[in-house]
Amino acid sequence: MHPASLISKLPRRAVVREMGLRDGLQSVATIVPTAAKLEWIRDAYDAGQREIEVGSFVPPKLLPQLADTGEVLAFAQTLPGLRATVLVPNFKGAERAMAADAEMMLVPLSASHAHSLANLRKAPDEVVGEIARIRAERDATGARTRIEVGISTAFGCTIQGEVDPEEVVRLVQAVLDAGVDAVSLADTVGYADPAMVSRLFERVLRVAGERLVCGHFHDTRGLALANVYAAMQLGIARFDACTAGIGGCPHAPGASGNVSTEDLTYMLHSMGIETGLDFDRLLALRAKVVKWLAGEPTHGTIWKTGLPKTIKKEEAHA
Amino acid sequence: MHPASLISKLPRRAVVREMGLRDGLQSVATIVPTAAKLEWIRDAYDAGQREIEVGSFVPPKLLPQLADTGEVLAFAQTLPGLRATVLVPNFKGAERAMAADAEMMLVPLSASHAHSLANLRKAPDEVVGEIARIRAERDATGARTRIEVGISTAFGCTIQGEVDPEEVVRLVQAVLDAGVDAVSLADTVGYADPAMVSRLFERVLRVAGERLVCGHFHDTRGLALANVYAAMQLGIARFDACTAGIGGCPHAPGASGNVSTEDLTYMLHSMGIETGLDFDRLLALRAKVVKWLAGEPTHGTIWKTGLPKTIKKEEAHA
Repeated sequence: MHPASLISKLPRRAVVREMGLRDGLQSVATIVPTAAKLEWIRDAYDAGQREIEVGSFVPPKLLPQLADTGEVLAFAQTLPGLRATVLVPNFKGAERAMAADAEMMLVPLSASHAHSLANLRKAPDEVVGEIARIRAERDATGARTRIEVGISTAFGCTIQGEVDPEEVVRLVQAVLDAGVDAVSLADTVGYADPAMVSRLFERVLRVAGERLVCGHFHDTRGLALANVYAAMQLGIARFDACTAGIGGCPHAPGASGNVSTEDLTYMLHSMGIETGLDFDRLLALRAKVVKWLAGEPTHGTIWKTGLPKTIKKEEAHA
Repeated sequence: MHPASLISKLPRRAVVREMGLRDGLQSVATIVPTAAKLEWIRDAYDAGQREIEVGSFVPPKLLPQLADTGEVLAFAQTLPGLRATVLVPNFKGAERAMAADAEMMLVPLSASHAHSLANLRKAPDEVVGEIARIRAERDATGARTRIEVGISTAFGCTIQGEVDPEEVVRLVQAVLDAGVDAVSLADTVGYADPAMVSRLFERVLRVAGERLVCGHFHDTRGLALANVYAAMQLGIARFDACTAGIGGCPHAPGASGNVSTEDLTYMLHSMGIETGLDFDRLLALRAKVVKWLAGEPTHGTIWKTGLPKTIKKEEAHA
């Protein structure tokens, strides 16, 4: 292996997909008003973000923070070129997403049996069955909504502990067979390290190829950016992130903090990987989000230290 | 490039070299009493650490925090198998290190002209000349003290900005020609990203080969562990770290925080790379250091969240 190949394999361009409005807000007690959410989306859009998960079609009783997802999605759909994603935990949510003409819906599927029961009250294979019904419904209705399955707890689980990589590969194959458009791998609880990422993404790439579209890393134990780097070396060029590093999973104790949008963007800019993002605007948006979530834990590093002197503003805004 | 080669290239074993007593303490105002330093070294030794930089032979007027380096070194030399390192900024310091029979002395050489002037009041090539005189003195006296040159600001500088990789390679070649035993590359101010690390280490490996022995990364902007991973992929298997992530450089504003010993150890253990370190003892030592440095900034992540459920105690103690 010649080291140069490590570099040349990296993508030229990567997408930072904003998860703050869904993965972030679902795990904080504060309910952000709809108007602030629209301002968030507008600012993120103005900063160059073109993929945003705007909420979740779950019963408002379960997640009152996301009860306004329909309204938020409708606003996001007015912004040209913005790919607005919604999370749907089940068939009913998928029906709502398709009825709302969402461009994409993300269906979570836990590779951990125990997490799946805690999070969705269904075993993984029951979820696979539901995903197949969602695909059939889309075919029947002619909806355009793309289906991405996010394999959660793909690197281990705070409830169950070990998650067998075999099981991850099996579930990926099962949902591909069920006709989903894309899959992503999520380190829901911050257990992954770069070697695990390298191994698992490589195995899943063998079965999913270009349909493996995204890596979702939590920075619970400080390894999210190292994990992003490991996945990028395999050509992965889309990563989920949350403004101010908010996020987690209500059923995964200790799983605080998606990798922060600002930190991920800084690393990509520093490496010369284009994101289309305006760093100063991301920082300004971060400040707003921190204000809206006053008292909630936030994360991230680069907002404290600022960009290196060696990063030119033009590059940072590339 | 087959991904498997990324993994197989990683070292099986890596050394976490403790820098807290030197790089850490030199940048904090608190003066840790000698007795506490000896306790620190004893605890680090009991946790499995076998390479510790115990201080710096600089004039006590400049760094009163390290005025007891001679005494601390003498204690460290009583612990079987411990490689105690001292930093020496000049010929005079090197004479003291050799007189004290130190096993290794680390001579800093800034690749940034501006940082070199600020830190040592000498241009880089003057420092190279002094290093040659140190080597000649060692030959003349028959001292056993090995000479490692740490190329600081190798990835950029808060004063000067850009540092030309060409200049880093030139200086490495110059000190190798001057007869030093080893070189290391330091991201003194936290400007490096994994792609930069990959490129620069690869270039320096071409001229230094096995004499490039160590990577020194500050976590100022959250990329230290990603940078360690990038260097490990090139076979580098020794990394500097500071307990509780303390550290920095008094002449590099904003350069806070060596990568924390605990976080680095966690990543290595998670990846199955042996360190010989006892994780619980490292955490217990961290708590002591934080107490000794009450009020000073500390860093790190894993002490807050604990090890993943998937890491068995036996593995963590490997």
